[in-house]
Amino acid sequence: MALDFLKTPEKDAVRVKSEALRAQTVAILRGVGTPKGHAETTADILIKADLFGVDSHGSGNVVNYATQIQKKKYTVPQKIEVISESPSGAVISNGNGLGFVGAHRAMEMAIEKARDVGVGMVSVRDGHHIGMVGYYPLMAIEADMLGMAMTNGARSVRPALAARPRLGTNPIAFGAPAGEEKPFLFDAAMSTVASGKLGLARRLGVKIPAGWAVDAEGDPIATPPPERSEMWAQNPLGNTREQGAHKGYGLGVMVDILTGILSGGGFSAQQEGGQNQTWCMAVDISKFRPLDEFKAHMDEMVRELHNTPAEPGEKRVLVAGDPEWENEAERSVKGIPLHKSVVEALRAKAKEVGAKVLV
Amino acid sequence: MALDFLKTPEKDAVRVKSEALRAQTVAILRGVGTPKGHAETTADILIKADLFGVDSHGSGNVVNYATQIQKKKYTVPQKIEVISESPSGAVISNGNGLGFVGAHRAMEMAIEKARDVGVGMVSVRDGHHIGMVGYYPLMAIEADMLGMAMTNGARSVRPALAARPRLGTNPIAFGAPAGEEKPFLFDAAMSTVASGKLGLARRLGVKIPAGWAVDAEGDPIATPPPERSEMWAQNPLGNTREQGAHKGYGLGVMVDILTGILSGGGFSAQQEGGQNQTWCMAVDISKFRPLDEFKAHMDEMVRELHNTPAEPGEKRVLVAGDPEWENEAERSVKGIPLHKSVVEALRAKAKEVGAKVLV
Repeated sequence: MALDFLKTPEKDAVRVKSEALRAQTVAILRGVGTPKGHAETTADILIKADLFGVDSHGSGNVVNYATQIQKKKYTVPQKIEVISESPSGAVISNGNGLGFVGAHRAMEMAIEKARDVGVGMVSVRDGHHIGMVGYYPLMAIEADMLGMAMTNGARSVRPALAARPRLGTNPIAFGAPAGEEKPFLFDAAMSTVASGKLGLARRLGVKIPAGWAVDAEGDPIATPPPERSEMWAQNPLGNTREQGAHKGYGLGVMVDILTGILSGGGFSAQQEGGQNQTWCMAVDISKFRPLDEFKAHMDEMVRELHNTPAEPGEKRVLVAGDPEWENEAERSVKGIPLHKSVVEALRAKAKEVGAKVLV
Repeated sequence: MALDFLKTPEKDAVRVKSEALRAQTVAILRGVGTPKGHAETTADILIKADLFGVDSHGSGNVVNYATQIQKKKYTVPQKIEVISESPSGAVISNGNGLGFVGAHRAMEMAIEKARDVGVGMVSVRDGHHIGMVGYYPLMAIEADMLGMAMTNGARSVRPALAARPRLGTNPIAFGAPAGEEKPFLFDAAMSTVASGKLGLARRLGVKIPAGWAVDAEGDPIATPPPERSEMWAQNPLGNTREQGAHKGYGLGVMVDILTGILSGGGFSAQQEGGQNQTWCMAVDISKFRPLDEFKAHMDEMVRELHNTPAEPGEKRVLVAGDPEWENEAERSVKGIPLHKSVVEALRAKAKEVGAKVLV
């Protein structure tokens, strides 16, 4: 749910068509040696985030991924290996390459297993950033399944009542298809806000609200430092003991167990910046209940929620996914509004790696 | 995580041994016609909540369950039926009886399926209250598995930015075994606080903090009415838009989808007070990773979290389950501190149904 004060002002935005942006993203990844299929999978996921309005997880990040590949922090080409497997579960290695590739394969496997036995669950080790986590449940939705995905990351969030960061923002995404209504698509960090929102605030030069981050004494800070350190931390969802900080904290640890411990890749406090372990699950609805009944029931629920009166001063009650579907409808026609600094960075990186400039 | 101002003062508490309390609970349920096995399963789950210090979900509630049975709101004896089944999934009917019985059977089935194929998932319809949701993951932990459980309920929580309640408190519980350390055991409503905390505040005559409940205008209320209605609501975890209310709301809807829509039993807004649909999952760790490695890795994480410096004024950083294990250690020796009004109610109900008074 985008907060107005974190939106890029239209005057600083350049509208770019998604096709051009996808081609540019692929070209940059190809320029640093990424195999075609892996570059395309990664670009598809990044562009979906751009279309959905999840700007912090869009194609602008390809500049950093390409740099990681150049620095040999990412292995390219990467090898996806199955470490263990059962009819409904698996652990795979992402081969230390682009996180998108392993996470995409994990959800593909989960969908295949769900089709066979009802539920599929795959945990991924040796991973990196997987972009917008909501993309992976979307793959399940397209297969008429429920989808769920989680990913951990280096320490930036403090446990409830702690003075130091120990967890990543550890997002959870969940999706379910509907019939006539849009699918339900939830995607949220288990911190008060995603890290990207702190970066956006920094870039826009605005202060963050109390409750988002604290110093090493537990006092709120309005302008967090650009680098992660032991001296400041994001708050878990819930913020205070009284308001349920232990809930965001506990959910974050659950993410760590499913992603980092079940896979063996490591929990948040064991990750270097840029390391991420991932978990995907798919559930074949038709093995539980006739699909058309399920979808009609989803429609009923979505309509009930949309028809709930809003509190005074608010226009309407949203359902998870609404902003994303609305952004996609607008951006697929008008183009994706990129901050001009992002366009410049994409062009510079393209030139640097010998790729055509396409945006 | 218990808040001090909601604890029953020791002067109003009577200590009762868990064995006596269990026998009393079974006797009351037997007195209203519950089959022996069903009464014992229900009592085990209620007594575990008492031992864990989850007083809102303890055996005091048996008075109400017995009344529901007397009023024919619960069907006794109930029949558990399998509606659909696949190697890793199932939907079962709880037969409109005690919710504990169907939820317990669901986790048993999930564990059996996980042992066969890696993951087991069972959604339960025609259900009622299942007590402390954390009990069910505990069953998985005892089988060296990961366990997860959710349950929905009648409307008491508002969607983010809404003026009316549409969701239950829709708790999520998750557990994982460790090696030398205690298991991780998370159990939390997706509202700011569980409904039981509002009831406790009412019984103790204390005001609740802002952020827990609002009136139909969205303004905070300090003393919520005893009955659910359209005129007031609990807040979703996160409370405000800026602090992530859409996250608690979205997670609550996810619970509704897995419990109420996947099973067909109905989402929160379709439930009468006392109706609850449930979902259980078990994951056989050994099919993903050697169990001893997993447990040693859990120990590492739990120690890392426990060793995190606390913020000024706090003694220590907890891990989900810590208060429960500590309460159980104390209460299994000293007895369970019941509010004297709870003891009186148990005695009265026992007499009413022709059971022996055992507490």
